[in-house]
Amino acid sequence: MSPKITGELLRQLRQAMKNCKYFSEPIQAYIVPSGDAHQSEYIAPCDCRREFICGFNGSAGTAIVTEQHAALWTDGRYFLQASQQMDNNWTLMKMGLKETPSQEDWLISILPENSKVGVDPWIIAADQWKNMSKALTSAGHSLVAVQDNLIDVVWMDRPERPSTQLRTLGLEYTGMSWQDKITALRTKMTERKVTWFVATALDEIAWLFNLRGADIEYNPVFFAYAIVGMNTIRLFVDLKRLSDPALRDHLQLDSPSKPELSIHTYPYESVYTELQAICAAHSPKDKVWICDKASCALTQVIPKAHRTPIPYTPLCLAKAVKNESEIQGMKMAHIKDAVALCELFAWLEKEIPKGTVTEMSAADKAEELRSQQKEFVGLSFPTISSVGPNGAIIHYRPLPETNRTLSMNEVYLIDSGAQYVDGTTDVTRTVHFGTPSAFEKECFTYVLKGHIAVSAAIFPNGTKGHLLDSFARAALWESGLDYLHGTGHGVGCFLNVHEGPCGISYKTFADEPLEAGMIVSDEPGYYEDGSFGIRIENVVLVVPAQPKYNYRNRGSLTFEPLTLVPIQVKMMNTEMLTQKEREWVNEYHRKCREVIGAELERQGRKEALEWLMRETQPVV
Amino acid sequence: MSPKITGELLRQLRQAMKNCKYFSEPIQAYIVPSGDAHQSEYIAPCDCRREFICGFNGSAGTAIVTEQHAALWTDGRYFLQASQQMDNNWTLMKMGLKETPSQEDWLISILPENSKVGVDPWIIAADQWKNMSKALTSAGHSLVAVQDNLIDVVWMDRPERPSTQLRTLGLEYTGMSWQDKITALRTKMTERKVTWFVATALDEIAWLFNLRGADIEYNPVFFAYAIVGMNTIRLFVDLKRLSDPALRDHLQLDSPSKPELSIHTYPYESVYTELQAICAAHSPKDKVWICDKASCALTQVIPKAHRTPIPYTPLCLAKAVKNESEIQGMKMAHIKDAVALCELFAWLEKEIPKGTVTEMSAADKAEELRSQQKEFVGLSFPTISSVGPNGAIIHYRPLPETNRTLSMNEVYLIDSGAQYVDGTTDVTRTVHFGTPSAFEKECFTYVLKGHIAVSAAIFPNGTKGHLLDSFARAALWESGLDYLHGTGHGVGCFLNVHEGPCGISYKTFADEPLEAGMIVSDEPGYYEDGSFGIRIENVVLVVPAQPKYNYRNRGSLTFEPLTLVPIQVKMMNTEMLTQKEREWVNEYHRKCREVIGAELERQGRKEALEWLMRETQPVV
Repeated sequence: MSPKITGELLRQLRQAMKNCKYFSEPIQAYIVPSGDAHQSEYIAPCDCRREFICGFNGSAGTAIVTEQHAALWTDGRYFLQASQQMDNNWTLMKMGLKETPSQEDWLISILPENSKVGVDPWIIAADQWKNMSKALTSAGHSLVAVQDNLIDVVWMDRPERPSTQLRTLGLEYTGMSWQDKITALRTKMTERKVTWFVATALDEIAWLFNLRGADIEYNPVFFAYAIVGMNTIRLFVDLKRLSDPALRDHLQLDSPSKPELSIHTYPYESVYTELQAICAAHSPKDKVWICDKASCALTQVIPKAHRTPIPYTPLCLAKAVKNESEIQGMKMAHIKDAVALCELFAWLEKEIPKGTVTEMSAADKAEELRSQQKEFVGLSFPTISSVGPNGAIIHYRPLPETNRTLSMNEVYLIDSGAQYVDGTTDVTRTVHFGTPSAFEKECFTYVLKGHIAVSAAIFPNGTKGHLLDSFARAALWESGLDYLHGTGHGVGCFLNVHEGPCGISYKTFADEPLEAGMIVSDEPGYYEDGSFGIRIENVVLVVPAQPKYNYRNRGSLTFEPLTLVPIQVKMMNTEMLTQKEREWVNEYHRKCREVIGAELERQGRKEALEWLMRETQPVV
Repeated sequence: MSPKITGELLRQLRQAMKNCKYFSEPIQAYIVPSGDAHQSEYIAPCDCRREFICGFNGSAGTAIVTEQHAALWTDGRYFLQASQQMDNNWTLMKMGLKETPSQEDWLISILPENSKVGVDPWIIAADQWKNMSKALTSAGHSLVAVQDNLIDVVWMDRPERPSTQLRTLGLEYTGMSWQDKITALRTKMTERKVTWFVATALDEIAWLFNLRGADIEYNPVFFAYAIVGMNTIRLFVDLKRLSDPALRDHLQLDSPSKPELSIHTYPYESVYTELQAICAAHSPKDKVWICDKASCALTQVIPKAHRTPIPYTPLCLAKAVKNESEIQGMKMAHIKDAVALCELFAWLEKEIPKGTVTEMSAADKAEELRSQQKEFVGLSFPTISSVGPNGAIIHYRPLPETNRTLSMNEVYLIDSGAQYVDGTTDVTRTVHFGTPSAFEKECFTYVLKGHIAVSAAIFPNGTKGHLLDSFARAALWESGLDYLHGTGHGVGCFLNVHEGPCGISYKTFADEPLEAGMIVSDEPGYYEDGSFGIRIENVVLVVPAQPKYNYRNRGSLTFEPLTLVPIQVKMMNTEMLTQKEREWVNEYHRKCREVIGAELERQGRKEALEWLMRETQPVV
């Protein structure tokens, strides 16, 4: 990985920062956030502005350019990657370390008095704008909305915004018609005396209308906005996409069943003016719900007195609690995914001794095997296929210049997943094809203990996921070890592999309580820089638990693993496991045999079945 | 406990709410917060306005009176107590339960349109004012500052504000002169480019000047404010208190060593006008630090552009990390306290069979025994001495009408502590003088497992206490049990028994990371309503730990118990303990023998020593 050369680009950007074509007065700093106008985590090529300017292409990070400096903030997953992708015009700001200043503090420490800091109001979230603006103002500076994006000004060959074909999803997958979803949303709006709801998150819009697209790689979403009133539904989308008769029928565009369920379609770009018109026609009592993570530009259209910003929208919450059809779909998707992975590992075992398998070819093989499964759509994120020291780069993605050969001597970590029409998967396994060192086994076993501690935890209804995070770390902490990322994230159903509002992380507090039907990942890890990486990740379903007592009738919850892929026993120091942990491993492997074994049998994949049986021998 | 009759008082208060003597327009609701003008948790009798109006005298709770309704919000510790102390004019709002509305939501749901909600701006914290005002405004109402306190208007025999004698503390106790504390504060101010600091919390002012008072029962503080500039120190306090020559000498009032360390004294009430004068004379760049928990009245004196509200002041942080002298003092205080408790338990064992010991007499005996120890000042909070079902009332305080007799048949819980000149203690033990039931032992053992899990936890430097809270609950959760309070709070050194900014609770997120020298309590519990209560509480010191590895050189921490009082083995189901837990118990008891045994010997307290030796036999 060689760094992007950014000297000339920065010169042009700094020139634009002084060019009065774009604002009344020059700006002294320009902020380039990571996201798009929908605050998506994964973004389309046309929106990769932060990558364009600094070279770093991880999923999270903010660049700030001043007249003298250029700095990038990112989190522990990306410290190594960012330092490799950026040239020395850039300073890497390692978030989460005590000595790293916040963006606000850094700006305040270096800006001349009364500075203006610019940002594109469409790609900064309203809550971030508010915090940044407040901090800058209190130090005598100001945050200004620059309507023309200054990166676009210097980006000569910027790609077009994609407009892929839309796919409709039937009741057998969604379990609920979009009409019923609209009605449920309106019930919530009535309860909270809200008359308008503005949907800006792409996965929420896809979920609401039971539609999927392919505008953003790995995320089956499409560029759109929606505004839902008590009697009206407005969908903002490239109108060319709505010509397919089956799609028009699905949305009842030509013959709505009821007037209040009739969808009015508008061009994608007109959301701003339409929302303005709605607000202008407002009754003085109308309240508008908009997520506080929506763009500053759209949020500020709504007069402050009418605006009800919420940390999570009702769609986000409804989407997180999967219904029976969605749970069944997710289970099916995970069975197919496990079949592909068992095949992969059986193949690797055979091929690695030949010395011909690389990180990239292993990732390709995984994709090929997944693509043989029914209703495969694509990957759910770029496969992390990493050998030895590359495994310590938490969100590594193999490239020709970093591509290592898999061997009998190094730990191999593969974190991968796919989109199937019935569900989304995300699984990490760490394996050794020769003989792991005692230290590798020791670390693997701490991580396994953490994985089990979360997976087997019983906790009261109403518990927020962040309260479970330390369970995943206790064994590592006891030996002075840790990992610098959260333990789990929400997972969508044939939707984004990362979704809110639940998760398991020490970093959040405002997460919503876990409830039965939610689906999250459980993925503690350990990373020894320059040497190896370990992560054990299952996707798990929140299910009711029946412990001995039921304090105050609150009820209890626990997790059921949806991922059913053997965890390599060779990597475990089984003497370090408690009796209960050994039982958990054996029961998990028994279930892998039962469920995945049957499917391998059905699909006639004999070698993979043999591998599965070998890898799921009980530990004693 | 019979409820307070409040019909007539509420009638008078509602009349005052309509009386235009106090405001330009009548108010439709009046909020009565719990605290005083310093947001103290424990308050002087003249400040017990919420208790006066509703009868509930717990340490936390907010009353709101509207034209039709009267409601009190309090947390899980006080549900039973509040329901017993309030008559049926009042609705109890159980905070933390899903169905309980927030104060804002409740007000919005019942108020007529365009209502005015009044509150005394001196006793509502600035951050609470802000949140409440925002919520009310967004619903079309408004929050108004009522200068005359309406409770005082109807409170005929309201006591005077106390003004007790001040005590100076020498370096042997404080480890740092007040001059050095001022200098350290100014260094922090310079670092953050702040020119003024307003101290409003009574314990911070007491700590800063190495003074103690007795204005508030249990808390050795005195009513005062302080404003520290880069060259000036202003202390606002009843000037009559400053006549003692030793005190004048301690504060160098008559011959300051340096001009910038000269203390200017002002009457307590003049803080408002002095702060106004300072702000009027402001340079445009001056920044003022004030805690966001300071009163709304004082905060709003500072122009918004100059105000830098902080969740915790630098004094709060500095005070939390105890220096060597303070740690030594705390250790000594805990040894003396343990001596008194060993005596108490030995005495109880002898006296209970006679049937003459009650909750109140046991509490009195504990106080008497503590008062025999050197440098005893008073209790650090009202003793919770509770038998059987009373133990389930989390912050129970025995009263003549509830006073139960200690017996061989019920669980006894005593949570008590004292102020010594060298330190503050807080300890809870749960014991049975006959034969506990299997269920009582089972629950006790879950609580013990939680206590040990926190106490023995090893965690990285920089970890916030709230991340350890679930460790205390895991064993209870596994059986479907829980407790509705936090696990630990910061403890002052001859100061408030509850102090910030650290603690161990699922309820906070903005707590400061734990660091070596901080002192917190570790007190999980279990409460079976109508039957018994269990809590095991030690005060523990954060100390460096040396685990096998040291990931990223962050260093690790753990806890060292300062409380050294045996935990009753009879209450344990030792078969439920792991080998490691048994070892923890035995090591803890060994240390009790070693340290407290020696002191009992020295003090010639033979019966208590025999009791200690009996109670600290190793478990196998």
